[in-house]
Amino acid sequence: MEKVLAYLKDNEANFVGQLCEYVRFPSVSAQTEKHGADMKACADWLFAHCRSRGLEAELHPTPGNPILVARTPRRKGRKHFMIYGHYDVQPPEPFELWKTPPFEPRIETLPDGRKIIVARGACDDKGQAMTFIEACRAFKAVTGKLPLPITMMIEGEEECGSKNLFGFVRDNAAEFKLDLALVCDTAMWDQKTPAVTTSLRGLVYEDVKITCADRDLHSGVFGGAAQNPLRLLSQILGEMWDDKGRVTIPGFYDGVKDLPADIKADLKGLDLTAEKFLGPIGLKKPAGEQDRMVIEMVTTRPTAEINGIIGGYTGEGAKTVIPGEASAKVSFRLVGEQDPEKIRDAFRAFVRARLPADCKVEFGNFGLAPPIQLSFDNPALTKARAVLADEWGHKAVAVGAGGSIPIVADFKNVLGMDSLLVGFALDDDRVHSPNEKFDLKCYHKGIRSWARILDALSSG
Amino acid sequence: MEKVLAYLKDNEANFVGQLCEYVRFPSVSAQTEKHGADMKACADWLFAHCRSRGLEAELHPTPGNPILVARTPRRKGRKHFMIYGHYDVQPPEPFELWKTPPFEPRIETLPDGRKIIVARGACDDKGQAMTFIEACRAFKAVTGKLPLPITMMIEGEEECGSKNLFGFVRDNAAEFKLDLALVCDTAMWDQKTPAVTTSLRGLVYEDVKITCADRDLHSGVFGGAAQNPLRLLSQILGEMWDDKGRVTIPGFYDGVKDLPADIKADLKGLDLTAEKFLGPIGLKKPAGEQDRMVIEMVTTRPTAEINGIIGGYTGEGAKTVIPGEASAKVSFRLVGEQDPEKIRDAFRAFVRARLPADCKVEFGNFGLAPPIQLSFDNPALTKARAVLADEWGHKAVAVGAGGSIPIVADFKNVLGMDSLLVGFALDDDRVHSPNEKFDLKCYHKGIRSWARILDALSSG
Repeated sequence: MEKVLAYLKDNEANFVGQLCEYVRFPSVSAQTEKHGADMKACADWLFAHCRSRGLEAELHPTPGNPILVARTPRRKGRKHFMIYGHYDVQPPEPFELWKTPPFEPRIETLPDGRKIIVARGACDDKGQAMTFIEACRAFKAVTGKLPLPITMMIEGEEECGSKNLFGFVRDNAAEFKLDLALVCDTAMWDQKTPAVTTSLRGLVYEDVKITCADRDLHSGVFGGAAQNPLRLLSQILGEMWDDKGRVTIPGFYDGVKDLPADIKADLKGLDLTAEKFLGPIGLKKPAGEQDRMVIEMVTTRPTAEINGIIGGYTGEGAKTVIPGEASAKVSFRLVGEQDPEKIRDAFRAFVRARLPADCKVEFGNFGLAPPIQLSFDNPALTKARAVLADEWGHKAVAVGAGGSIPIVADFKNVLGMDSLLVGFALDDDRVHSPNEKFDLKCYHKGIRSWARILDALSSG
Repeated sequence: MEKVLAYLKDNEANFVGQLCEYVRFPSVSAQTEKHGADMKACADWLFAHCRSRGLEAELHPTPGNPILVARTPRRKGRKHFMIYGHYDVQPPEPFELWKTPPFEPRIETLPDGRKIIVARGACDDKGQAMTFIEACRAFKAVTGKLPLPITMMIEGEEECGSKNLFGFVRDNAAEFKLDLALVCDTAMWDQKTPAVTTSLRGLVYEDVKITCADRDLHSGVFGGAAQNPLRLLSQILGEMWDDKGRVTIPGFYDGVKDLPADIKADLKGLDLTAEKFLGPIGLKKPAGEQDRMVIEMVTTRPTAEINGIIGGYTGEGAKTVIPGEASAKVSFRLVGEQDPEKIRDAFRAFVRARLPADCKVEFGNFGLAPPIQLSFDNPALTKARAVLADEWGHKAVAVGAGGSIPIVADFKNVLGMDSLLVGFALDDDRVHSPNEKFDLKCYHKGIRSWARILDALSSG
């Protein structure tokens, strides 16, 4: 193990160079027309990269983007682990807010001395996935083999719902039903404290388009008499929350349980004040349910958010138009036993119930993932926390995460496979935002962390 | 007069050709960066066109777009009339809804046999303004002079609030304080029935931008805790109407009077049902105040409309973002004694009162025009209605209009000059919408109507 860690130290510059190459691909899975070819090129690069590192990789075609699978043979009596990541990234828009182009990586030193790499995907999930790819490479280079049998799966559709991966995993359930999935797509607790994530919120993502008149109208001619889809969207979506921050959709909280008192006390002990959490982004007062702690709002409570609205005239100056149609993207984070399909249906019914009879609504779905709670009694969790403490010098906390990783729910619900979620993102990484970055310290210590975890899991 | 009408008959093809040339200029006044040069080119064309028709024209520079002024000398003891129109047009967006490009005019025959010209500005206000330019030309061509002294004023900023025209008129009040302004920018009652417009609604047009976090956020990380500007916009703007369709902004209805019983009875007599008014645009139930007739909603009652909203991710697929900022354009049509500045201030206070303390709002104003009610006792109104009936074979109705023509209020309030508003637009002209058109019958009979009106006004 010491030799592996020494190898990692010696190769840091090379790891940064590889990540810079990797993030140059604009692998935006949501924009298939614009970036279909880039997705393919990115998968090909990843494939070649794994092969050159001595990992036996294959690219599996899907109706969407290919899935990279690299595996070592199963060994009788030995535990076999899945490693999961994704090579697709979020759309980079709005471009004008990026200080440098999103797919031209830049190394920068922050005023506090931290070195960072800035690019779309630098953290989510190219940088994070590279931490275990490079850890595996180190074992190959130093010992000639991996310390334990693994199947690595890196997909290209996580940011748009993993829809082709679901089928692939289900169709090959026997092959992929392994002992544990290792996932590197979550965050540290803070810059010093590593974290293992024990729950993930689910997701329902809906597109809603309201159509009123069959054309855009002049507000001087029709204003006051014709229905305005922007007014309807505002009124209907604005009613989704009451004045205490609770979601008003009927049945929304079905399956949401209060936390056990001891878990709640643990969360309270983390002392995540509104000031600490919202201060760095320029805010003060939490927008969620007023009777909840901030840490609950972002991890153990469900949410409704409007992710986008567009309609009417949005250019320079004035246009006195009543648009014929207007659209919104609305998403829900789910917890506990909330059922994604029921939430989707309840949302649609909520909108339809408020729509005038002469107006139309169309819905589209871009995500249906159930929430997931991982077992606390998996020995891998204990081992991982111990070696993370060795690497970082601080006890690793076990917390819930606010985001969703769609396939983790399928691993659990379809394959009966638990996941160990360890990640090295920081709250200021601007994941999904302009100027996304990844701390190089997180990158290098992340690689070392995975090397330690693989080593620890191989014993016993 | 017979000779003039004969001349007009003989020259119809030429009039259409001229209008086709005129609408080719993308004179979009709201988009100064993109179309500044086009505005200038359009003004130059108009100038040359008037000169070639024997009208003595000048172009007056302003800090914005030039104003065309063509005048005949004042004659002692004779009434002198203003003729007002505008050469700028509304933005053509969204382009994809145009069947043919907006600035490439196309002549089409509708299934009911009507011939139309399709282009941005074909009606508003290039086609309409050409009706009196060509009527003047006919008198020049046939009689060598105009039947009465006029000052023609055609500006290039009506669609974005006429802000430079106001100063120009005020600075030259002595010159422009004439006996009556003739304006061609309004509509017929229906395809057969001409109309004189006796009131215009005022306008307040506001841009509102709400900023929450100082960057876009990942809804998985911050969802539930961070304020979302789209949620705030929806909730705040959605509260602008109660469930009876009344605007809820405090003080909004100050200065709005109920109509006198006899005027209300006249309006009722026009029998403008919701079916007749909204059916052609695919709607059924009026969206306005539930205790009002449709004709009131669109002419004599004030309104609030959301003209545009943009924020967050609006591209293909899904992006789980909480945007840092979101914007809306909101406008109000005013009537009676409503004060534009008070309405603007009341709207801003309404938004601010609902905004969390850690969020910011910025406002921009793109229009402040008071409502206007014209005198019913002007003899020009009686003359115009009589000759319109001669031309169209139907009695001309006197009604209010829902739109605003900013300068008409200044003519009245600053110069003390009444306006005679006669226009030939139809409800299906798609003014301000994609595929704007103007009926060629309206165009030709509009020119003849102005010739008759000029002739009638010249006697006595």
